[in-house]
Amino acid sequence: MTSHFATRMNHVNDSFIREILKVTDQPEIISFAGGLPNPQLFPVEALAEAANRVIRDSGRQVLQYSTTEGYLPLREFISERYQRKEGLTVHPEDILIVNGSQQGIDLVSKVFLNRGDHVVIERPGYVGAIQAISLYEPEIHMVRLNENGIDLNNLKSILTRHPVKLMYAVPNFQNPSGITYTEETREALAALLTEYSVHLLEDNPYGDLRFMGTHALPVKNRLGDLGILMGSFSKTAVPGIRLGWVCAENTIMKKLKIVKQAADLHSNYLAQRILVEYLENNAFDDHINIINQAYKSQRDCMVSEMEAQFPDTVTFTRPEGGMFLWVTLGVHASSSALFERAIQKKVAFVPGQAFHLNGEGDRSLRLNYSNASVDQIREGISRLASAIEG
Amino acid sequence: MTSHFATRMNHVNDSFIREILKVTDQPEIISFAGGLPNPQLFPVEALAEAANRVIRDSGRQVLQYSTTEGYLPLREFISERYQRKEGLTVHPEDILIVNGSQQGIDLVSKVFLNRGDHVVIERPGYVGAIQAISLYEPEIHMVRLNENGIDLNNLKSILTRHPVKLMYAVPNFQNPSGITYTEETREALAALLTEYSVHLLEDNPYGDLRFMGTHALPVKNRLGDLGILMGSFSKTAVPGIRLGWVCAENTIMKKLKIVKQAADLHSNYLAQRILVEYLENNAFDDHINIINQAYKSQRDCMVSEMEAQFPDTVTFTRPEGGMFLWVTLGVHASSSALFERAIQKKVAFVPGQAFHLNGEGDRSLRLNYSNASVDQIREGISRLASAIEG
Repeated sequence: MTSHFATRMNHVNDSFIREILKVTDQPEIISFAGGLPNPQLFPVEALAEAANRVIRDSGRQVLQYSTTEGYLPLREFISERYQRKEGLTVHPEDILIVNGSQQGIDLVSKVFLNRGDHVVIERPGYVGAIQAISLYEPEIHMVRLNENGIDLNNLKSILTRHPVKLMYAVPNFQNPSGITYTEETREALAALLTEYSVHLLEDNPYGDLRFMGTHALPVKNRLGDLGILMGSFSKTAVPGIRLGWVCAENTIMKKLKIVKQAADLHSNYLAQRILVEYLENNAFDDHINIINQAYKSQRDCMVSEMEAQFPDTVTFTRPEGGMFLWVTLGVHASSSALFERAIQKKVAFVPGQAFHLNGEGDRSLRLNYSNASVDQIREGISRLASAIEG
Repeated sequence: MTSHFATRMNHVNDSFIREILKVTDQPEIISFAGGLPNPQLFPVEALAEAANRVIRDSGRQVLQYSTTEGYLPLREFISERYQRKEGLTVHPEDILIVNGSQQGIDLVSKVFLNRGDHVVIERPGYVGAIQAISLYEPEIHMVRLNENGIDLNNLKSILTRHPVKLMYAVPNFQNPSGITYTEETREALAALLTEYSVHLLEDNPYGDLRFMGTHALPVKNRLGDLGILMGSFSKTAVPGIRLGWVCAENTIMKKLKIVKQAADLHSNYLAQRILVEYLENNAFDDHINIINQAYKSQRDCMVSEMEAQFPDTVTFTRPEGGMFLWVTLGVHASSSALFERAIQKKVAFVPGQAFHLNGEGDRSLRLNYSNASVDQIREGISRLASAIEG
């Protein structure tokens, strides 16, 4: 039977993170492993009202089939916001509504990638992107991250040696590292990609979750048509409604609409209508500010506890936003070995190998701070410190 | 720029039906072109109540990320219903919740199809399946339908000549033809597919919409693990929530979960919770009976008007359920030419070419009766009859 499966299935396994999340699901474990937004901050009442209103007032429309591109007022909201927040002039017809930006990665890969094509991903990189892209059987090159964002020399050396078609990157509060690309890095990255005519799939699920430092504009602003920008309502509104978007120029958008229609006709229309009803009747930026205040306290607590309790051999990033930070253990340390000890001490994280190919990255690990209270963070880091001590 | 796109994009164009639906969108046109369920029959109040209840009572859960396979009580509902209605013993873990069965077609194709693999589809066939499958660049063989379902000799001849991996079929009230496979055809089809070890992707979005005749059991009942069965809530509940499912044995299910997770992590969780809340508090079969009574009147009206008004050279199917019937024009007639005349007379349908490859099928056309009132059907068929007269 197995021989019936497509060869692309040889390139992926059952998700490593899924397996880890099963282990860490026990209630007595303090988990920094997941990637969940804090549900205490969900605008539950406002969404209940919005749902009630759109179904009662317009049920025969909002429960019917709809258009592949997505509900126009939602695409207008997104394009106006790009203009206002990012200085990016795009129109509603440049926006495709998808089931979270995860679907955007799949659809863009489907439009661009033949088997054997060359793709660049960050190292460490977003697991969901590695999985989605791998299913199209490309050659994946991972480019190192550094404190300024991406290692440009490493990238240039890859671009010189391989005809790269597409690069996937998360320039703001990257998952898993928490790193944000500097202005200079963005500028130089755009120049390099333009020189080699490489499309950038710029994923920005965390961009609005900045709680310190200064806002940086998308790389797409310097890239023009080579830039494909994605966003998500999963971290700013709620993830359960699975709504995100892809922003791309017309030639690409036409192809994206074809593959979106073939994939599932259109994204959940009821969810789109509920979200627009919510956005029109609530101050979205105020809501995001509330999230950012909470995440800043959680992040500050985690950083200061780690500074106080971890040995000097352990280093870590200090993100200015987003949901994750990245820990590098001392030389010869193993995060998968640490994971076993940590689970015994009832604290969990994701070992770094999950964000690499070929088993690399075992000295590092990812911590999530968005879905734990300050008290849990204090106790959890203390447990982790004692696990690190051995 | 175009050269950057994957070769799979050469196999599909912007949807023909999308273009037709744009033309037929004008309010003065009576359209039998779409494939929409009748929104007058949507359980709007009950769904509004269900939405309000799940968000208010369990907002922090139902708006959060969830599991790839889908909400367990929904998968339990589906597997229990299979046992009760179809005599098919499956377990919740054999069910994957997807965004309408359209996504099932995409995911199953992704799991099975390498470029150049051989696939069988019905002729005429469901456009969405042709599109989704074509993106995996297989060799597609279309097998003729007849009044008993599928032309088994035609199928056998294809299976003898090509190493077919997968067949896609809609055995109940097929889209576009309205044809239902007889028991004998199901039996013989299962035997043939078993002999040649071909997986059957059995799509059953209309199976519950039977308003005359006797229920036929799925082909999967005779096929075992070679059978992959799909269903949908789009026609029995509402389509805007994009919920359907794939039912497959464990080896296939493991692969499906991997590609589902890469595609969009999981289906809309809020929608799943609303649907379960609705199903637990309402008599679903009674609701389906209401739909079937309405569709039977609409179908009966369309058939009797056509019998009265169409010339004898025009033949058509008399479906026992579902939403469509299939018209074959006289020798040398062209449905695309008829379409132009029909639009001038303010009535629309989908020309048969949409359901074929390579421009075949121009003598035939599809009519939808689910989304038109009896009055509209009477007037619309009268207009169509006069367009046929020339």
